[in-house]
Amino acid sequence: MNKKYCIGIDYGTQSCRALLVEVDTGYEVGDYEAPYPHAVMEEVLPDKTTKLPPDWALQHPEDYLYCLSTVTKGVMSKYQVNPEDIVGVGVDFTACTILPVDENYEPLCFQEKYKSNPHAYVKLWKHHAAQKYADLINEEAIKRGETFPRLYGGKISSEWLIPKVMQVINEAPEIYDEAACFIEAGDWIVYKLTGEEKRSSCFAGYKGLWHKQNGYPSKDFLKALDARLESLVDDKLSNDIYPLGDKAGEVNTVGEELTGLKQGTAVAVAVIDAHAAVPAAGIAEEGKLLMIMGTSTCHMLLSKEEVLVPGIAGLVEDGILPGFIGYEAGQACVGDHFGWFVNNCVPESYIQECKEKGMNIHALLTEKASKLKVGESGLLALDWWNGNRSVLVDADLTGLIMGCTLTTKPEEIYRALIEATAYGTKIIVDTFKENGVKITGLYAAGGIAQKNAFMMQIYSDVTNMDIHICDSDQAVALGSAMFGAVAAGEEKGGYDTIMEAVDKMSKVKEDYYCPSPENHKVYQELFNEYKTLHDYFGRGGNDVMKRLKDIKLASRYE
Amino acid sequence: MNKKYCIGIDYGTQSCRALLVEVDTGYEVGDYEAPYPHAVMEEVLPDKTTKLPPDWALQHPEDYLYCLSTVTKGVMSKYQVNPEDIVGVGVDFTACTILPVDENYEPLCFQEKYKSNPHAYVKLWKHHAAQKYADLINEEAIKRGETFPRLYGGKISSEWLIPKVMQVINEAPEIYDEAACFIEAGDWIVYKLTGEEKRSSCFAGYKGLWHKQNGYPSKDFLKALDARLESLVDDKLSNDIYPLGDKAGEVNTVGEELTGLKQGTAVAVAVIDAHAAVPAAGIAEEGKLLMIMGTSTCHMLLSKEEVLVPGIAGLVEDGILPGFIGYEAGQACVGDHFGWFVNNCVPESYIQECKEKGMNIHALLTEKASKLKVGESGLLALDWWNGNRSVLVDADLTGLIMGCTLTTKPEEIYRALIEATAYGTKIIVDTFKENGVKITGLYAAGGIAQKNAFMMQIYSDVTNMDIHICDSDQAVALGSAMFGAVAAGEEKGGYDTIMEAVDKMSKVKEDYYCPSPENHKVYQELFNEYKTLHDYFGRGGNDVMKRLKDIKLASRYE
Repeated sequence: MNKKYCIGIDYGTQSCRALLVEVDTGYEVGDYEAPYPHAVMEEVLPDKTTKLPPDWALQHPEDYLYCLSTVTKGVMSKYQVNPEDIVGVGVDFTACTILPVDENYEPLCFQEKYKSNPHAYVKLWKHHAAQKYADLINEEAIKRGETFPRLYGGKISSEWLIPKVMQVINEAPEIYDEAACFIEAGDWIVYKLTGEEKRSSCFAGYKGLWHKQNGYPSKDFLKALDARLESLVDDKLSNDIYPLGDKAGEVNTVGEELTGLKQGTAVAVAVIDAHAAVPAAGIAEEGKLLMIMGTSTCHMLLSKEEVLVPGIAGLVEDGILPGFIGYEAGQACVGDHFGWFVNNCVPESYIQECKEKGMNIHALLTEKASKLKVGESGLLALDWWNGNRSVLVDADLTGLIMGCTLTTKPEEIYRALIEATAYGTKIIVDTFKENGVKITGLYAAGGIAQKNAFMMQIYSDVTNMDIHICDSDQAVALGSAMFGAVAAGEEKGGYDTIMEAVDKMSKVKEDYYCPSPENHKVYQELFNEYKTLHDYFGRGGNDVMKRLKDIKLASRYE
Repeated sequence: MNKKYCIGIDYGTQSCRALLVEVDTGYEVGDYEAPYPHAVMEEVLPDKTTKLPPDWALQHPEDYLYCLSTVTKGVMSKYQVNPEDIVGVGVDFTACTILPVDENYEPLCFQEKYKSNPHAYVKLWKHHAAQKYADLINEEAIKRGETFPRLYGGKISSEWLIPKVMQVINEAPEIYDEAACFIEAGDWIVYKLTGEEKRSSCFAGYKGLWHKQNGYPSKDFLKALDARLESLVDDKLSNDIYPLGDKAGEVNTVGEELTGLKQGTAVAVAVIDAHAAVPAAGIAEEGKLLMIMGTSTCHMLLSKEEVLVPGIAGLVEDGILPGFIGYEAGQACVGDHFGWFVNNCVPESYIQECKEKGMNIHALLTEKASKLKVGESGLLALDWWNGNRSVLVDADLTGLIMGCTLTTKPEEIYRALIEATAYGTKIIVDTFKENGVKITGLYAAGGIAQKNAFMMQIYSDVTNMDIHICDSDQAVALGSAMFGAVAAGEEKGGYDTIMEAVDKMSKVKEDYYCPSPENHKVYQELFNEYKTLHDYFGRGGNDVMKRLKDIKLASRYE
C-alpha cells in the first residue's frame, strides 16, 4: 500500500502554507507557501484611492482562494504526491477574521458596486477599529448582569465577531443588509472545499461568544445593543456548530478544481491557527500551557474544569481538543514587536555591521543583547505596542519604555522588549494559578520557540519554569494536518481520535530550557516593577494611555 | 575719532574664541577661535603615563594662556584693528572650573614636581569624581539644618567648588597644603591680564556657595565636614567678591605681552559663559527668561526679589546683572537628546533618504515631524535621558516614552522628544510663577534657538508665550564684550552701565515666535499628562527609576 498523507492548510497573517505530513509517523515531507498578494491592507483599498482610517486592518478574500490553489497544488507537485494518497485536509486560520458573503457564499467585495466599500472586505483579526462597539457590549453586559463575559476574562475584545459586525451595521448598513451572513474566513474556506457550511466550535466559541450549552448571547441582549441586531444569529450567523475533530465534509468538484485534491478527500472542521498547535506539541492532557510564539503569542491550556479566570481571553468546551475545556490567553505583540524595532529603531551602523559580518539584524542584536547581564541596561518596558489582550483585555493600552539614558544602546532596548513580553507571559501564568487552574509545565511552539534560544532562556528565567519546545517548524500546520487525518478516520487511512493522532504524529524536542536561579532572582525584582506599572497604567491608576489615544484620534479627525 | 571696539573672550569646553565688537552698535566685526591643545583630559595626564580614573575631566592651564594669546592677537590682526581702539575686554569661562595656584598665581601643575599629580591641574566643570564629597555636604547640611542649600534647589552638585576642593584635600593633601588658593579659571585669566585678583560674584555665587549677605557656608559647617576645612575660606579662597559689571582692573605689562592688548585697557570682572548671554539678548530687566539652548539648556532670569524656588538650580545677587537677583535653572538633556536619537534610533532607510535628498538627518526628521499635527502620534515622553536638573534636581531619573504602537514612526518619536523638552521648560516657567517670581517674556539664544524654527514654535505653542530670539551666533562672547565696554566706562569710549550697553549693543531678532491657540489647547492636555507622570515618577509616587538604577549598578559591579 502507498504511504498515506494528510495536509494542513495554514492561513497566517501574511501568507498561506500547505504542509504535507505522513499519517503514520507525523513526518513532515515538506511545505509550500504563498504570500497574500494584497498582504494586510491598513492604509488603502485595492482601488488605491479609498483610504482607511487608523486601526483598520483588512484582507482580500481573493487572496485566500489564490493561495489555497497555489499551495495545495504546489505542495503535491513539489513532493510528487498522488492526490489519491491524501486522506484528509485540515484548515486553520487567523481569527476573528470575518467577511460578509451573499447567499452563494460569494464575498460582497467581489461585487463591482462594493469594491470601494471597506466594510465589504475581510476584517482581519487585528482590525482594531471596532473598539467603541466592544465598549458598548461590555457596558451593556455589565448593566444587564450578563454572565457570558465571565467566560472571556470579563471583557469582550474589539477583535471579535460581534463588535466587528456592529461596526458594519453602524458604518455601512447597506453591507449588513446585503450580507447573507458573516462568516469566519476559516469556515468559509471549508465551505469552498466541501460546499458545506460547518462552522467550527473553535471560532464560534473563542470569537463569537457562543457557548456549547448556552448558545450565543440572548436576543434580548442583542436587541438592547441595537434593535437591528435582535435576530442577528438567525439572520446572519449560524447555530449549527461542530466540535474540533469532526469531519466537515469532503472535497467537492469546486474544491477539486480549486486545489487539485481528489473529490471525496476528508476535510476537518476548521480551527483557529494557534489552537491547532496543541496536538502537534504532544499535548492531550490538562496542565500543560502551550505558548505559540510568532508575531503575537497565544497561550493554550486544557482543563477538565470550567473555572472563570479574570482577563483570560476565552474558555470553550471542545474548543481545543474534544472533551476538554480549552483556555486561551494571548499577548498581542511579540514577534511584531521586534519587527517594528528593527524597521524603525536600528541605526545604519548596525546594518553596516551586519553586512560586514554576514549576519541578519536579529542575529546581531541577539548577539549583542546576550552579552548583557540581567538588569544591566536599567530599562523596563510594557509590551503593549499592540494593546493588551490578556489579562487586561484592553486594546487602547500602548507601549512604554523607561530607564533610557544617553548611553542606552539599541541592543539594550531590544532585550528590554523581549523581557517585557516574558513578564507579560508570567502575568498570564500567575493569573491562571491564582485562580485555581493547574499549570504543571510550559511548552512552546512557533518560529521564535524554534529558533530563539536567547529569548526562550529569558522566558524560562523570568517564569522560573522549564520550557519544552515543539520539534516542528510548522506546529500549527502539523496540527491542522492531524485534524485532517482524524477527519478521514482509521478506515480511510487516518485516525479515529485526535488522541491517537497525538500519540503517533506529535513532536517534542528532547532538550528543554531550565531557569537560572541567579537570573530569576533579578528578574523577580524587575517583574515586580513591571507588575506595578502594569496595574498603574492598566487598571485605572492613570488612564493616560487612553487619553493620549483620544487626543490622537481627535487630532487626526478634527 | 576712530571707531571703538571691545573684545569678548569666551572660554568654552573645547576651545577659546575672541569676538571683536563695535562699541557703539554692537556690530560683530568677527571672531578668532583656537582649540585647547590638550582638549579635555579624561584618560591620561600630559606626561602620557599618569592615568585618570573614571569620571575625571581635567584641563591644562597652559592651554588657556596659549589660547588667550592666540585669539586676542589673532582677532586684532585678522580684522586689522589697532589695540589703541580696544576700550575694554570681558572674559567668560565655563564653571565651576578651578585650579590650585601658588602665591604668585602660578598653577601648581607648572611645577616640575607636580607635573604628574592630577590634582595639580584644572578640574573642569564636568569633572564628576567628587560625587561622594557632594553627598557628604548634602547629608551634613540636612543634619545641621543649614539653609544655604535652599538657594540651590535643595542640593549641592558634585560639579561645584567645595566638593572639588574636598576631593583635593582628601586625595592629594600635599596639593591642598601647597596651594596658596583655589581659583576659578575665569578669575585667574582676569588676574593674568591685570595682575589683580578680583573674584566674580557670578562664579562665587553659583558655584562657590557664596551669598552676598551671608558669605560662604560657616566655619562650623566646614569644620563639621572636615576639621582641616575650618579656615578654608580665609586660607584658600577669598571673601573679596565683585559684582558683574565692575571693572576688575587694566591690562598690565604681563597682560600686554601675552595678548597684544594695550596696557591700561579695561578688563571686566569675569562671568560664567551662559550667564554672559543675558545682556546680549537685550535683557536688562526682571521677568524675561532667557533659554540658552545647546546640548543642554540653561535658563536665566532676573528679579528684584530673592524668593526661594524649590528645585531651581541657583539664585545669586548680582550674579547675572548688577542690582538683580539672578536665577538659574537647567535642563540636562536637550540637543544631546536628539543627538542620541539620531545615533541610536534612526533606521537605515532614513539615512538613505537623506543621501538621496542631500539633507542631513535632523533636517529630514524635522521635515517629517513638522507634518504631524499636535497629539497625532499619541506619544508622550519624559525628557530625563540625562536625569533632571530642575525642578526635581535628581540625576537618577531616567527617560521614558509611552504611547508606542506598531505604527509609531521615527519622526513621531523625534517630535515627542522635542515636545518633552518643551514640557520640561514649561515646568520650570510654571514653578517660577507659582513661587511668585514674575515671568513676562521668553527669550532664546544658542544654536538651536538660531536654527530650529520647528522646535522654537513647539516651545511657543507649549508655553503659550511669545519667544524672542537673540540675533547673534555668539551671544555669550557678545555679552562678555559688553561687560568689557562697561569696564571701560563712558569716558574711555565704553558705557557706564550694563543697561546702557544692553540698550546699544544687544541684539534681538525682529521676528519672534507666537503661540498658536489651537496647538496650545492640545499641548495643554498633553502637558497635564506630562505633569502627572513627572510628579508620579519624580516625586516619590513610584521610585521605579531609582530602583532600576540600583539594579543596574548591582548588575554591573556584582
